[in-house]
Amino acid sequence: VPAGDDPPPSRLTARALGELGLIAGIRRRWGAAGPGVALGIGDDAAVVAPAGQSVLLTTDTLVEDVHFRRATTGFADLGAKALAVNVSDIAAMGGEPRWALLALVLPGDTAAADVEAFLDGVGEEARRDGVAVVGGDTCASPDRIVVTVTLVGTVLGAPLTRAGARPGDAILVTGTLGASAAGLATLDAPDLPAPPDAVAAVRRAHWRPTPRGAEGRAIRAAGVATAMIDLSDGLAKDLGHVAAESGVGATVELGALPVDRATTAVARAAGADPLIWAVGGGEDYELLFTAPAPEADRLAARVTAATGTPVTRIGRIEPAGAGVRYRDAAGRPRTLPPGFQHFVS
Amino acid sequence: VPAGDDPPPSRLTARALGELGLIAGIRRRWGAAGPGVALGIGDDAAVVAPAGQSVLLTTDTLVEDVHFRRATTGFADLGAKALAVNVSDIAAMGGEPRWALLALVLPGDTAAADVEAFLDGVGEEARRDGVAVVGGDTCASPDRIVVTVTLVGTVLGAPLTRAGARPGDAILVTGTLGASAAGLATLDAPDLPAPPDAVAAVRRAHWRPTPRGAEGRAIRAAGVATAMIDLSDGLAKDLGHVAAESGVGATVELGALPVDRATTAVARAAGADPLIWAVGGGEDYELLFTAPAPEADRLAARVTAATGTPVTRIGRIEPAGAGVRYRDAAGRPRTLPPGFQHFVS
Repeated sequence: VPAGDDPPPSRLTARALGELGLIAGIRRRWGAAGPGVALGIGDDAAVVAPAGQSVLLTTDTLVEDVHFRRATTGFADLGAKALAVNVSDIAAMGGEPRWALLALVLPGDTAAADVEAFLDGVGEEARRDGVAVVGGDTCASPDRIVVTVTLVGTVLGAPLTRAGARPGDAILVTGTLGASAAGLATLDAPDLPAPPDAVAAVRRAHWRPTPRGAEGRAIRAAGVATAMIDLSDGLAKDLGHVAAESGVGATVELGALPVDRATTAVARAAGADPLIWAVGGGEDYELLFTAPAPEADRLAARVTAATGTPVTRIGRIEPAGAGVRYRDAAGRPRTLPPGFQHFVS
Repeated sequence: VPAGDDPPPSRLTARALGELGLIAGIRRRWGAAGPGVALGIGDDAAVVAPAGQSVLLTTDTLVEDVHFRRATTGFADLGAKALAVNVSDIAAMGGEPRWALLALVLPGDTAAADVEAFLDGVGEEARRDGVAVVGGDTCASPDRIVVTVTLVGTVLGAPLTRAGARPGDAILVTGTLGASAAGLATLDAPDLPAPPDAVAAVRRAHWRPTPRGAEGRAIRAAGVATAMIDLSDGLAKDLGHVAAESGVGATVELGALPVDRATTAVARAAGADPLIWAVGGGEDYELLFTAPAPEADRLAARVTAATGTPVTRIGRIEPAGAGVRYRDAAGRPRTLPPGFQHFVS
């Protein structure tokens, strides 16, 4: 773009902004230091002070045409989700999300307004979760958008891992399951004859997952939970992780799975089984946790009282070797497909 | 791949390994906890203990066809470089690199042997720098490889930033400049009539940069340096960052720039000016730092004595408003192109 010949704002692109323009914009937003930030954006590395706490580290990448499609994803939602999926990982340790790094790979023809919307989305989610964006990297992409967020959290004392579940423990989940998969199904089949409010609700669940930070901290603080994980790849796969790390098996009561009304309505319109979405769909970003059976109901009530989020008991931990099994409402065993796995077509 | 019909190792791909197979391989390498690692790969987040030190955070992404081409980059070199460029950022603060997260976006048809070589390269560099790989993310790519490494470092006391340079300070650099750009030039023009040992040397500089960790810590430990940055985007752009952050200008004596024999030989064969590579080429991953002029020579000698790496005085910091200027060996002003900037074609 020659000097004195600026394109109208609506046509301004990442290429026209340039890397320095893009970084300057990011710095204007997040350059001021937040709590515990000694040095934010603008140097070789950010400097933070965890003040004696343990430091939690997690990173997640969203790739265009793998995790999202540009035609059906708003940039603000994409920004919020890129951070939210990482907040969910810190939540699953019972930690406090604190400082984020944003590595942004963008095609040069991305509209500057879309970049702004993306950063707005990141900022909105960051405010909601108490996170400071302290650094990152930006570079040009030949075609697809790739967003990698790294999130640093803190925790005082031992975090809650995937490894502590014991046979006899109850399995519990926050919120409801399957709504994100239902949302994706409505995007794949836009003419689905489902009630518009149900479609809007499940799409929102897909586009703007709500990480369960307060719930994760309440679960850990109660002191009785034995293991925790966030449901990003689906109940089947993520419960499988808990089973593998804890050296146990699990039984899930399908009749107990919490599925909301919008998901049920969309499933009916699609001729789909909402339980398949609840077990294998993924991207719900709810927390799954385990606790000794006698403590489970009290723990659930305590978490709901502290956060307003429903908690449901969905099964029990079994001895090693049992694998993850499902039973229908009549107590009969049922086989279900595994959750999403990358590189498997 | 059906069971009992494994492809020969040479044809095994990321898709055949699957996400879980890939993660299992990564975990076999780096699953054991290192110093300060309370919990490594395999949970929602890694847990590390910085033990009262400040925490440095940096992230860098390498994108296929932007930062490297598959035809001219070995997978082991790519892995080593993905970590090395981050170690360089921690070095530029005077910190200790400690814990790394590896976010790997890979096409499904990437050969498993190439994935192994990549991880070998990461591991080799990690051992060299004393870094533990504690987590990450893997996902399928529709086509291009994208690697994002996030590195966490520690520093006791205040790190050395870009912001402290004062008018009159000397400007110094470690090692030599322009070799990486010379290496890239030999890849772009494979038939260049340059001596084979010179070609091999500059390609090695391009493929396997050596981050200056020990040098960065020695520079900071001496207590007299006023600012520091690593040279990733080229002297012109990176010195520009120091000038902007410190609110100063700078004069660079082109005749003083350290350029090695191999780079000079390749430049002669290419009919190129090695100073252009030294100033604008980027990816040298040397350190540029500033110190009060009376202390500069002693500081340089001290760093060389501690690390074996030559240090060269290349100019001085000027008052604000002067910008970054260049003078040739005869003292005449000279204009040079700026360094690499993303999104500018």
